[in-house]
Amino acid sequence: MMILASENALVDYIVRTMPAVDCELVRVGIGDDAAVIRPLGQGYETVVTTDQLVEDKHFTRGTHPAGSLGGKLIARGVSDVAAMGGQPQWFLLSLCLAEWCSEEWIKQFITGLFQTINSLQISGLPLIGGDLASGKIFSAHVTVAGSVLTERALLRSGARDGDSLFVSGKLGGSALGLERLLGGADPDDPAVLRHINPEARLALGQFLVDAGASAAIDISDGLSIDAGRLAKASGLAVEIEAERVPRFAETSDEHVWHGGEEYELLFAAPPTAAIPDELDGLEITRIGTFRAGAGVFRNERGASSAVPIHGFDHLSSKSHVGES
Amino acid sequence: MMILASENALVDYIVRTMPAVDCELVRVGIGDDAAVIRPLGQGYETVVTTDQLVEDKHFTRGTHPAGSLGGKLIARGVSDVAAMGGQPQWFLLSLCLAEWCSEEWIKQFITGLFQTINSLQISGLPLIGGDLASGKIFSAHVTVAGSVLTERALLRSGARDGDSLFVSGKLGGSALGLERLLGGADPDDPAVLRHINPEARLALGQFLVDAGASAAIDISDGLSIDAGRLAKASGLAVEIEAERVPRFAETSDEHVWHGGEEYELLFAAPPTAAIPDELDGLEITRIGTFRAGAGVFRNERGASSAVPIHGFDHLSSKSHVGES
Repeated sequence: MMILASENALVDYIVRTMPAVDCELVRVGIGDDAAVIRPLGQGYETVVTTDQLVEDKHFTRGTHPAGSLGGKLIARGVSDVAAMGGQPQWFLLSLCLAEWCSEEWIKQFITGLFQTINSLQISGLPLIGGDLASGKIFSAHVTVAGSVLTERALLRSGARDGDSLFVSGKLGGSALGLERLLGGADPDDPAVLRHINPEARLALGQFLVDAGASAAIDISDGLSIDAGRLAKASGLAVEIEAERVPRFAETSDEHVWHGGEEYELLFAAPPTAAIPDELDGLEITRIGTFRAGAGVFRNERGASSAVPIHGFDHLSSKSHVGES
Repeated sequence: MMILASENALVDYIVRTMPAVDCELVRVGIGDDAAVIRPLGQGYETVVTTDQLVEDKHFTRGTHPAGSLGGKLIARGVSDVAAMGGQPQWFLLSLCLAEWCSEEWIKQFITGLFQTINSLQISGLPLIGGDLASGKIFSAHVTVAGSVLTERALLRSGARDGDSLFVSGKLGGSALGLERLLGGADPDDPAVLRHINPEARLALGQFLVDAGASAAIDISDGLSIDAGRLAKASGLAVEIEAERVPRFAETSDEHVWHGGEEYELLFAAPPTAAIPDELDGLEITRIGTFRAGAGVFRNERGASSAVPIHGFDHLSSKSHVGES
């Protein structure tokens, strides 16, 4: 089956591979000039986000399995929807194929993407369109849309003075896994698995809307930079208690504070909100407090110091595999 | 002003350059994990499309002015909305910058994109988000969403036996202009201008919904291939009267029948629909008829022959600057 013989053959392969979705929302999907989407039910708004995956920027083909890349691309978009407290509804996928892309590689990429969608605990995520091209390097794009209760989306700007800062999961594993992957580690290494198979925290995001969280972001670029984004958008400072930050096994301070691609949720909640210690097995940890001021501070045994923000800048001249 | 110094500097430049839009629809735009969009008014559905522009596939930097590329990228997305009979409402923009991209080049790209939006006769098109990266080649993506009357979107599949085939404008100019551009022609050459500054036929698309057109497509890959798409989606053949096809000055049969990037609308309408000869100065020509069967036929002085479909295949191994 020569899926790369023509544009039609590749589209046919994607459509055949796509899990069946019974979706009321999609009037017209793949195959017209544009898709047609029916309105969401009353009381809902649309959230929409877009992400790209670029060869030698976000991955190298020598180290990253194709299936995990497809999965990671869609997980990144879905994670943004999760961070708003939304439920994913549909997505668009564009591919730019490089000459080195084999049939097998593309199949694994597509299959990995749909497997990740199947692993989400939702009724399905219809692919409604996209665009195909070829170029000197491989790149892929998704646009993911979701639904969120009207005026209840978890914005970055909603934290208030005195709110607590919480994080899900354990930090640093993805950065450690990337180091190990680039060093030739076993693909079953727990940190490598953490890096190549991120999970979007959809159930947590939706729980937080109901629980009364005030702000949220997904950790794509690192605890320090993403905590700084929450604090800045909310016009506050945030003080993080270093001992409380949950650490993935064998990680360094650099991994934990500045490692990206975690896709854990970092969120604010007022003292009145009931935030549990775990949700369906996912641990949730209170790690800090928002206060008047600006910046991110690290509190260690009562001594507070400003945290240098050195997360990823996506336009930095040094290409850095593993950016998000 | 070093807009390429960091991701933040480039986002700031884009936000400053973006024309102000008073848009009820956007609750949260650029700057959060995802944008938040309010529901459309009652009686409307959403149309959504995505397009990419890849260096050395769709353009070469030596021949194509940066401003025209930004304009062409957004025009392509808006043209898809036009072909559905829709009104553009918001868009997402992702950029992957190459090392050769200078500040001036990026500014021209962004400015050209917003100038093209300003030239559309709509109240504005808010940019609500996107993604930035860098890579070995430049590429850019848009996702454009619009509104369309419920169940009234102009699909490719709506043509009926006996419907007429119409086209707007004159064909072949874009392909001729690309040849001349690659040959070093004057940038003021009318065909070159036609190639680098395509116009989305928004007013026509919306007119056609009211006028009772049955199907539509925008000519992005060429008259032969796009007529074939309309016919195939509708389960019919279409016979085109060669003498009636409106030709751009100095074009060959190859330009007119197989040249892409026209962005004119090719549409079907039943005999009962009142389709005028022009709309606001844009000529509209009846060029053929749908009938039972399959394929595209060229009728010349009463003799009918099948038209070989050789439009663009976007995965063909030969890179072909000017694909869409």
